[in-house]
Amino acid sequence: MKKPMIVMLAAFLVAAFAGHSEPSNRDDDKAAITAVLTAQQSAWNEGKVDVFLEGYWHADELSFSGSSGVVRGFNAVRERYQKSYPDRQAMGKLDFTGLEVHMLGTDAALVLGHWHLTREKGDIGGVFSLVFQRFPEGWKIIHDHTSVVPSSAETH
Amino acid sequence: MKKPMIVMLAAFLVAAFAGHSEPSNRDDDKAAITAVLTAQQSAWNEGKVDVFLEGYWHADELSFSGSSGVVRGFNAVRERYQKSYPDRQAMGKLDFTGLEVHMLGTDAALVLGHWHLTREKGDIGGVFSLVFQRFPEGWKIIHDHTSVVPSSAETH
Repeated sequence: MKKPMIVMLAAFLVAAFAGHSEPSNRDDDKAAITAVLTAQQSAWNEGKVDVFLEGYWHADELSFSGSSGVVRGFNAVRERYQKSYPDRQAMGKLDFTGLEVHMLGTDAALVLGHWHLTREKGDIGGVFSLVFQRFPEGWKIIHDHTSVVPSSAETH
Repeated sequence: MKKPMIVMLAAFLVAAFAGHSEPSNRDDDKAAITAVLTAQQSAWNEGKVDVFLEGYWHADELSFSGSSGVVRGFNAVRERYQKSYPDRQAMGKLDFTGLEVHMLGTDAALVLGHWHLTREKGDIGGVFSLVFQRFPEGWKIIHDHTSVVPSSAETH
């Protein structure tokens, strides 16, 4: 009986220590999540919408909410982006600012932030709330709720 | 040495079994979260904004995003509601529909839904994304992102 008990105890201790090493894991996770958004910003500013979209969960359960309701599924979200931003001029230069990553347990996070598009035809921007989930391939956005904020109110 | 090892093994087994009883816990959690929203709807329809607000985390870290940016802190969220809905006529009759509760680990959840206010001065409605967190006193909304959806698009 002794050996298995020691093995299980070891498993317990590993689990306990894993639980207590959270702070550094959380910093790593926050950095990984921020890196997804930095990569999205770079891709956008190179006109690569498909690379930008790699930040999203490639699944029918992906959801995107805003002032036109809820768009469901990766393909519909991609269509929305392709329709709203058909060319570089419509895309403009994207800046994400004021990012705040709040971990929700070990495998999910809420990210708040501001977005701004600098464009010749007029700037546009606002706020977003993203829910990220950890997948074997990395952190992905599983839900995006984005609002346009009229520029007079954008400093909130 | 033997006794403590057995105690720790017992602790490990309890932890392991707790982890595996998730499905029924999840149903309980989803029901508890839905109950918070049902209570909010009832409170609103009785004109009790303060009772409605009990669904929110009573903390400075509470955040509420929308087309006027990000409102921070319970007091500011309360002020926003009091200002936007000064009387029963402005409040109208609230309906939450199409609620979807997605658990994010064991202590957090994302809730998507539609809101609609039936009012004499004109209906208004849209979609919301809520992040709930489990507290000793129950499930509370820690972040709310709400959008108005023009009625022509509200069926999305």
